[in-house]
Amino acid sequence: MTKEAVRALALSKLALHRAKHLIDVGAGTGSVAIEAALAHPQLQVTAIERNPAALGLLEENCRRFGCPRIERVFGVAPLVVEQPADAVFIGGSGGHLSQLIDWSLAQLTPGGRLVITFILQENLNSALTHLATCKVTGLDCQQLQASTLTALGQGHYFKAQNPVFLIACEKESHHV
Amino acid sequence: MTKEAVRALALSKLALHRAKHLIDVGAGTGSVAIEAALAHPQLQVTAIERNPAALGLLEENCRRFGCPRIERVFGVAPLVVEQPADAVFIGGSGGHLSQLIDWSLAQLTPGGRLVITFILQENLNSALTHLATCKVTGLDCQQLQASTLTALGQGHYFKAQNPVFLIACEKESHHV
Amino acid sequence: MTKEAVRALALSKLALHRAKHLIDVGAGTGSVAIEAALAHPQLQVTAIERNPAALGLLEENCRRFGCPRIERVFGVAPLVVEQPADAVFIGGSGGHLSQLIDWSLAQLTPGGRLVITFILQENLNSALTHLATCKVTGLDCQQLQASTLTALGQGHYFKAQNPVFLIACEKESHHV
Amino acid sequence: MTKEAVRALALSKLALHRAKHLIDVGAGTGSVAIEAALAHPQLQVTAIERNPAALGLLEENCRRFGCPRIERVFGVAPLVVEQPADAVFIGGSGGHLSQLIDWSLAQLTPGGRLVITFILQENLNSALTHLATCKVTGLDCQQLQASTLTALGQGHYFKAQNPVFLIACEKESHHV
Repeated sequence: MTKEAVRALALSKLALHRAKHLIDVGAGTGSVAIEAALAHPQLQVTAIERNPAALGLLEENCRRFGCPRIERVFGVAPLVVEQPADAVFIGGSGGHLSQLIDWSLAQLTPGGRLVITFILQENLNSALTHLATCKVTGLDCQQLQASTLTALGQGHYFKAQNPVFLIACEKESHHV
Repeated sequence: MTKEAVRALALSKLALHRAKHLIDVGAGTGSVAIEAALAHPQLQVTAIERNPAALGLLEENCRRFGCPRIERVFGVAPLVVEQPADAVFIGGSGGHLSQLIDWSLAQLTPGGRLVITFILQENLNSALTHLATCKVTGLDCQQLQASTLTALGQGHYFKAQNPVFLIACEKESHHV
Repeated sequence: MTKEAVRALALSKLALHRAKHLIDVGAGTGSVAIEAALAHPQLQVTAIERNPAALGLLEENCRRFGCPRIERVFGVAPLVVEQPADAVFIGGSGGHLSQLIDWSLAQLTPGGRLVITFILQENLNSALTHLATCKVTGLDCQQLQASTLTALGQGHYFKAQNPVFLIACEKESHHV
Repeated sequence: MTKEAVRALALSKLALHRAKHLIDVGAGTGSVAIEAALAHPQLQVTAIERNPAALGLLEENCRRFGCPRIERVFGVAPLVVEQPADAVFIGGSGGHLSQLIDWSLAQLTPGGRLVITFILQENLNSALTHLATCKVTGLDCQQLQASTLTALGQGHYFKAQNPVFLIACEKESHHV
C-alpha cells in the first residue's frame, strides 16, 4: 500500500480539485482511488488492477468506504478506457514502465497530470530516461523519506520507512 | 512557506473533505489556507496571522488565487474566533506552543483534528510533552525528509530539504 | 549493534589516532571497541557492559577478532576505571544519561572527546539539555539516516535504517 | 569536500588498518587522503588531482596537517602509478566513471578494496551497471543522509545535507 505521506503528495500533485477523471493504474487495494473519491465527490475514478485477489479487496474496500462510483477494471494497462482522463496515477512497479507511461499520456487530455511513485532505482532510471523523450512539461522528481515516532521501552524513536520516489509532470498543452 | 510534501500530508491529516471550518494559526502567506480553500469549495477557512507584512501577502494571494472566502484575522492566538472548528492547523513555530495547543483544542469540536508542523527540536519536545497531558487520541508524529532531483552539470542530484516534524491528533469525542 | 555508518562517524569523532585510552560504555557485543582496537594497535581499550550475556559475546568476539588487549569490565557505569581516558564512547541508551555523561567527563582528560549515539528522542533531549550545563566545547549533533540498496524482484530499492543521533564534544581544556 | 559522515564511512570501508597503499582519485583538497594518512602513519598515500588550483590547496593542506608523505600526482586517471594499491577511493564525480573503475581495479591487488562516493543519480547508475560486469565481490551500496543540529532563533533544527551514495566492493581474490 502506498504510504500516507507519499499518497498525500501524489494526490496533491494530481490537482484533483480541478480534474474530472482520474485513472489509477495498478490500483492495488485502492488506497489512492478511494482517498481521491472520498475527497472529491465530483470526480470520476477508474481503478485498473491485474491481480484478481487485489481487485477483490479493492471491491470490498469500495463498499466499506462507500465509494460505489469507482469503476473497477480487471486487466493490464494498456487496455481500453473510453473516457479521456485529466489525471493518471501509476502506483505499481511491475515493470514495463515506459509502455505504461506512453499509454497514460495517450489517455490524458492536454495539460492533464501524470504522477508515478515507486521504490526501485531501476524504475527511477527508466521513468526519467523515457519521460525525457515524451511531450511533458513541469517534471518534478522527489525522494520522500518518512519516519514515525514509535514507542520503545521508556522512550520513542523514529521508525524509518523506505525512501520512495515520486515523479509528477503535465502532458504538453500545445502540440508542436 | 510550508514545503509541498509536508503541506500535502498536513492537509490529508486534517481530513478536510468532511470538515466545515478550518482555522490556520500562523497562516503566513496562506499556502495551507489557500490550498485547503481551493480543494474544498464548501470549507470555511479562517487564517490568523500576527505579522502585518505576511498578512498583506496573504490578502494578495487570496485575490490572486480567487479565494475571497478566506477570513483573514490579524492578531496572535489566543484570540476570539466565533465559529467552532473541526480542523486546526498550526504551521508557525513562534514559541508558546503549549498555549497555542490549548487554545486550538478549545476551538475544536469533539473529534476535530489538530495538525502541527515545525522544524525545531524544542517544539517537538514541548508539543509531545504537552499533548501527553491533553484530551487527544490517535496521536501520530512523523519526521518527513524530502529531496528534489536537481540538475548539476551533466547530471542530477537530490537536493535535500530540512527534515520537518508533523504531529496529528484528534480531540477526544467523549469526556470521561 | 551500532550500524556501520554511525560507528564509522563515531570512531572518526573520537579522534583515536591521537588517543591513548578509549572507554566504551555499554559496549554491547563490542563492535565499537573491537573496530577501534583493530584500527589502532597502540590504543588501550576498556569495554564496560552490564549485561552478562552481551559480555560473554564480547569476550568471544575479542578472541575471534584477535583483540585480547581489550579490558572487559562487568558492571554499570559509574564504576572505577583507574586510567584516565582521552576518548569515551556511550553507545547504549539505557537511561541515566545525565549521570553517565557526568561520569564520562570525569574520566576524560582535558581536551578528551566524548561521543554518544542513540535513537531515542528522550535521550536526545536529556543529553542536549545536560551537556548545555557541562564544561564541554565544540558540541556537534547530527542525525544520520542510512539506507542500503537491496534486491527486490528484478530490481533494487534502498532499504531504510532508522535515523540515529550522534553527539560529539570535547572536555574543556582550561578551567575558568 | 566530502562530508564528514560520508568520509568516515568511506575510510572505514577502505579497511586501511590492514592496507599498505591507498590511491585517492580526484583527491580535491585532500580531505580523505589527509585523514587517512593521519590515522594510519604506516600507510602510503597517493593523491591524484587534475585541477591545478585544488592540487595547490592539497599541497598546502599536506603541509598544514603535517603529511609530507602523501604523494601528489597532477593529472587525470588513467595514468601510471607504479605501486599497486590495496585501497582505491574515487571521490570525484567528473564523468568517465566506467573507465575510472576499470583503471582502479587494475591498480588493486586481489582482495583490495574500492570505494566510490557521489551525489549524481547518473553516476549511481553507471557505477552499478558497470560494476555488475567487473570481477568484484561483496558489493555494498548505501545512501547516506546527514543533518546537523543548527541554532535558529530560540531553538535548533536539523539542517539537511544532500544525500550521498557510497559504493564499496572488493577486487576478486581468485581469477576464474
